[in-house]
Amino acid sequence: MRVLGLDPGIESFGFGVLEEEGGGIRVLDCGALRTSSHLPVWERLLQLYRELKELFLRFKPEEMAIEHFVGRGVRSALEVGEARGVALLVAAELGVPVFEYHPSKVKEIVTGYGRGSKSQVQRMIQLQLGLGSAPRPDDAADALATAFCHLWERKRKV
Amino acid sequence: MRVLGLDPGIESFGFGVLEEEGGGIRVLDCGALRTSSHLPVWERLLQLYRELKELFLRFKPEEMAIEHFVGRGVRSALEVGEARGVALLVAAELGVPVFEYHPSKVKEIVTGYGRGSKSQVQRMIQLQLGLGSAPRPDDAADALATAFCHLWERKRKV
Repeated sequence: MRVLGLDPGIESFGFGVLEEEGGGIRVLDCGALRTSSHLPVWERLLQLYRELKELFLRFKPEEMAIEHFVGRGVRSALEVGEARGVALLVAAELGVPVFEYHPSKVKEIVTGYGRGSKSQVQRMIQLQLGLGSAPRPDDAADALATAFCHLWERKRKV
Repeated sequence: MRVLGLDPGIESFGFGVLEEEGGGIRVLDCGALRTSSHLPVWERLLQLYRELKELFLRFKPEEMAIEHFVGRGVRSALEVGEARGVALLVAAELGVPVFEYHPSKVKEIVTGYGRGSKSQVQRMIQLQLGLGSAPRPDDAADALATAFCHLWERKRKV
């Protein structure tokens, strides 16, 4: 089972690809897509659309996991919404099922409780996935945490 | 000069196509794209993406006009952002230049002052465009008002 986790943003769009096989989970790739603040927003969205499509086609995830947006102000909701809309569109175009998780659920699964700090999530995701160092940047770690949460929830439900 | 005005939303996505020729402005089409609340958001965004692309290809607008989002809460900003992101993406994909206007600017141009009510904007856009009745639904009237504002501003700047 291959899962793509996403942490949408217009400046930095985190992604993480996890594969579960024979009970083990490994990281296939993670990172952040970046767009220049000197470009108009529609050019940035087009760039994200193309790069996300490339990611989907390269890794062929069977499922996609994404966090519910939880309020950090109207401006931020609008910007995240625009980037998120493009990501959801790519998944729908390519027929990849989407699963959404509340951020507190992701934290609970990764750290054992719902209110871990950002750095705790990063340390725990490093340990859970047996990585040599914490995934960088933050958005990549968040995307991996969301993908990890989804794999965990899937297993629980089987 | 042909302009497509948009008023993004996930339930109802307003559009209006205006053409200016020889000093006169006429409405080529207006209406609202609707998606079912029974579908997951990614399916609704895919439907909007396809229908918007069809609109662009049918009317071949030279420019697109859209309002700046002005705060009505985080939930609404996120939803409008998702639909807006898809519309901006279509414009960028097809190379149609995008122009954004603050809602108060649109009201000022259409009604003569920046704080007109929704129904005043509708009545005035009906008068300005010489329509037999006010455009329906509201989102179509708002989209026409934004396109009208853009044509007006273009003329002023020439």
